[in-house]
Amino acid sequence: MDAMTFVLFGAIGDLAKRKIIPALYSLYVDQKLPPSFSFIGVSLIELSDEEFHENVEQSVHTFSEGGSNDYSKLKDFLPSIRYCKLDVTNEGEYKKLLNLIQLREEELNIPENRMFYMSVAPTFFDVIALNIKKSGLGSTRGWKRLIIEKPFGHDLKSAQELNEKLSTTFQEEEIYRIDHYLGKPMVQNLEALEFANPIFQTLWNNQHIANIQITASETVGVEKRASYYDKAGAIRDMFQNHMMQLLMMTSMHLPKRITAEDIRNEKKKIIESVRPLKKENVRSDVIRGQYGSGEIDGKSVIGYIEEPGITPSSKNDTFVAVRLWIDDPFWQGVPFYIRTGKRMKKKSTRIVIEFKNPLKELYVNQNEDPTPNLLIIGINPNEGVSLQLNSKNPLKDGKIEPINIEFSADQDDVPKAYELLLLDAFEGDATFFAHWKEVELSWKWVQPILEAFEENLVPLHIYPSGSYGPDASHRLLEDDGFGWWLDKKSLESSKVAPQES
Amino acid sequence: MDAMTFVLFGAIGDLAKRKIIPALYSLYVDQKLPPSFSFIGVSLIELSDEEFHENVEQSVHTFSEGGSNDYSKLKDFLPSIRYCKLDVTNEGEYKKLLNLIQLREEELNIPENRMFYMSVAPTFFDVIALNIKKSGLGSTRGWKRLIIEKPFGHDLKSAQELNEKLSTTFQEEEIYRIDHYLGKPMVQNLEALEFANPIFQTLWNNQHIANIQITASETVGVEKRASYYDKAGAIRDMFQNHMMQLLMMTSMHLPKRITAEDIRNEKKKIIESVRPLKKENVRSDVIRGQYGSGEIDGKSVIGYIEEPGITPSSKNDTFVAVRLWIDDPFWQGVPFYIRTGKRMKKKSTRIVIEFKNPLKELYVNQNEDPTPNLLIIGINPNEGVSLQLNSKNPLKDGKIEPINIEFSADQDDVPKAYELLLLDAFEGDATFFAHWKEVELSWKWVQPILEAFEENLVPLHIYPSGSYGPDASHRLLEDDGFGWWLDKKSLESSKVAPQES
Repeated sequence: MDAMTFVLFGAIGDLAKRKIIPALYSLYVDQKLPPSFSFIGVSLIELSDEEFHENVEQSVHTFSEGGSNDYSKLKDFLPSIRYCKLDVTNEGEYKKLLNLIQLREEELNIPENRMFYMSVAPTFFDVIALNIKKSGLGSTRGWKRLIIEKPFGHDLKSAQELNEKLSTTFQEEEIYRIDHYLGKPMVQNLEALEFANPIFQTLWNNQHIANIQITASETVGVEKRASYYDKAGAIRDMFQNHMMQLLMMTSMHLPKRITAEDIRNEKKKIIESVRPLKKENVRSDVIRGQYGSGEIDGKSVIGYIEEPGITPSSKNDTFVAVRLWIDDPFWQGVPFYIRTGKRMKKKSTRIVIEFKNPLKELYVNQNEDPTPNLLIIGINPNEGVSLQLNSKNPLKDGKIEPINIEFSADQDDVPKAYELLLLDAFEGDATFFAHWKEVELSWKWVQPILEAFEENLVPLHIYPSGSYGPDASHRLLEDDGFGWWLDKKSLESSKVAPQES
Repeated sequence: MDAMTFVLFGAIGDLAKRKIIPALYSLYVDQKLPPSFSFIGVSLIELSDEEFHENVEQSVHTFSEGGSNDYSKLKDFLPSIRYCKLDVTNEGEYKKLLNLIQLREEELNIPENRMFYMSVAPTFFDVIALNIKKSGLGSTRGWKRLIIEKPFGHDLKSAQELNEKLSTTFQEEEIYRIDHYLGKPMVQNLEALEFANPIFQTLWNNQHIANIQITASETVGVEKRASYYDKAGAIRDMFQNHMMQLLMMTSMHLPKRITAEDIRNEKKKIIESVRPLKKENVRSDVIRGQYGSGEIDGKSVIGYIEEPGITPSSKNDTFVAVRLWIDDPFWQGVPFYIRTGKRMKKKSTRIVIEFKNPLKELYVNQNEDPTPNLLIIGINPNEGVSLQLNSKNPLKDGKIEPINIEFSADQDDVPKAYELLLLDAFEGDATFFAHWKEVELSWKWVQPILEAFEENLVPLHIYPSGSYGPDASHRLLEDDGFGWWLDKKSLESSKVAPQES
């Protein structure tokens, strides 16, 4: 790994405190940072190096998790860290940052490899990029890279504009767009599951798969993000980025080699093949929901429009369910059902692959009804793979019943998304980052939904907090003869036992 | 289930005491016996009904296992039981048995349904059958059935002769030949695994399977069975019956319907398609072994020829490994490796299905070597299904490693083989019994091996007690580029790490 300078814009913000700094420290403890690593925190607040060190220390103590946290190494970690007060909108001040970076490069005798992390509000993305260019910060004799977080635009046009601005300073291959879902170990494992297992490779197509269900449900409500969320909704906050990435990761085809570039191409092919929606037809394939009051874990919670900071007349979506089709020879005829929502019954991100059930006939005479084979990939909070098979139950006179064979990762030992992603960025491996084409094509696909919501062409279903979302989302699958597979322990689908209402 | 009389020949023998009587009692406790059930124990010893009841009681207390054992029900169970002293070779005495049966049939007002269980030495099989006929015991106005245990002959000719004799009294469909391996829940589950799971149905052929390994290894030695075993050897004691049945159960094709008759036909097709061996060529596909001294679980044990009752010059096989081929379009080119032995390292009966690994190339550049996908069916002592997949290990920078996803049956709740088989026989379901054609064709296939062993055309390899058998059995697989998959926890094959010597 190259020696480098890591410049963190927004160094005392929430994301830095909760995720980025603890992840850096974990990498340090695991000896996964380059031996010469210069870390410069940047923010508008006036702080001394020592005060920033205290911030870092507090962040590590408060937010580090897992087994790798040996606080005793903090005293060795802190000396590599400097702080620079900077008004990012003021071009003139960047000189100071450049000087500090160069000073440290000389002190540590490291090349001009510079990694910029924009952990700031999206309104500052373009101005920071522009000033990096103008101030000469970006004219390095080494490499430069940019790490950027969502939201990347709020619709197709704004995303294109933003990208254009960034690209005056950074080449596409220098930009690492974090979609932290791509940092989740089981999402990264999707590739291995599909490609390193010949039996799945055989089964991973429309000959054998009946449908694919991707769910990301949360129990939390809008929390403190009202002003952002009420404009974004589930469609922008979750669907356009995370859910579309999960879709691509699940359905992409085997490339010739397993490289970042080949995988990117395969993902692009998928998103290009997703059958476009027309604004007028959105309502037949997209369910829009908003949580009402209800109960979560036995506690009463208020509805979305009663939340502080939300317009009482808001028609914002806190739930979206989408049926879509990938028009290529592998997936022709296989519906993909994707849903995400807040204030749902369970916190769960998972992918369920339902296999076709051509053998139904065979057991009909014996009152045996084999349920479909399911491959269930648990992403969060429980990481694991489970396969639902049919088996004889010797306690019930050999009646055929589903069993689950499963593997669960040991939670504590699994590195967190930010650690994995930062490490990849340090190593220059862009496999698990969202590339511009993916982002752009996702926005393009989502655009008619945004407009249909905006123009109120799609009914808004109010669902009780603590439920599985609006009934309409079940009917979406029932139309096709399917049902949502509920949590993997219950082995039931909403079709078989409509509990989800 | 029909009301019936259950006549147990050899009622105070070892098998009756250890297996049959406890199984009957478990079925009684589970209310799986017919409401009117007359049980008559038969043996050469003079006993009163009361004395036989004491025997039954003792057997239940000593050998019953599992959760269904509520001894309080014994007092209700015993009154249905009668005893009849009988010299089975003496035709005249059968009249007494007939009278007792008829008396009980009248008392209980049950039809003349008679189930005969021959739990006696095989030399008596034919004479009992003959006397059942001659005495009029078999001329019932209801149905009659015969349950018989191995050994069924000691070679092709003797098996055919025995069958001919039995068939003067019993029709083939009246004979229930117990192969207790067919009573093991996971063996009965093979059918469901293959047929009720579309994904396995897709994969269950030579397009996807590289080889199939069937192992039944024991840690015990010859024990008290020297006089029988030294003549039989592993080939007759285990291979011709149990291993051939496991082979058929694993490889049979999907019938049109799941019925006893259709399954029997499919099994017959398989055994007819097993490529015959020629006596002269046996040595290239069959490994003969005999245990020497060694260590089992840290304790020294003596070699086979030192065992009491064994001829010191004995060349008897305590281990056999066989490579065979099924010449049909589904299995063409897939080697089946089958081995069984005594005094081996572990007690384990299991089937390992090794899938082809066509994706090896894909990961070559990254130093990743995905191991093959394996489906492992544990039969004994641990019942379960496990699937070995390749997965990324997030702790090792995403290196691809095998994981096991598994399902294990809860041991305590699983009914024992004899319970399952007796229940099936009571219900007249012959699915999990060995039919004559299977038995005959197995003997026919094994016959050249018997002769080659007899004529010493196959080397006898002495293997240390506590090992995985002779090295030669590993070379059998190495020739084909494979290795035995050792116990499922280790995930290693003898090819990768030749531990088995």
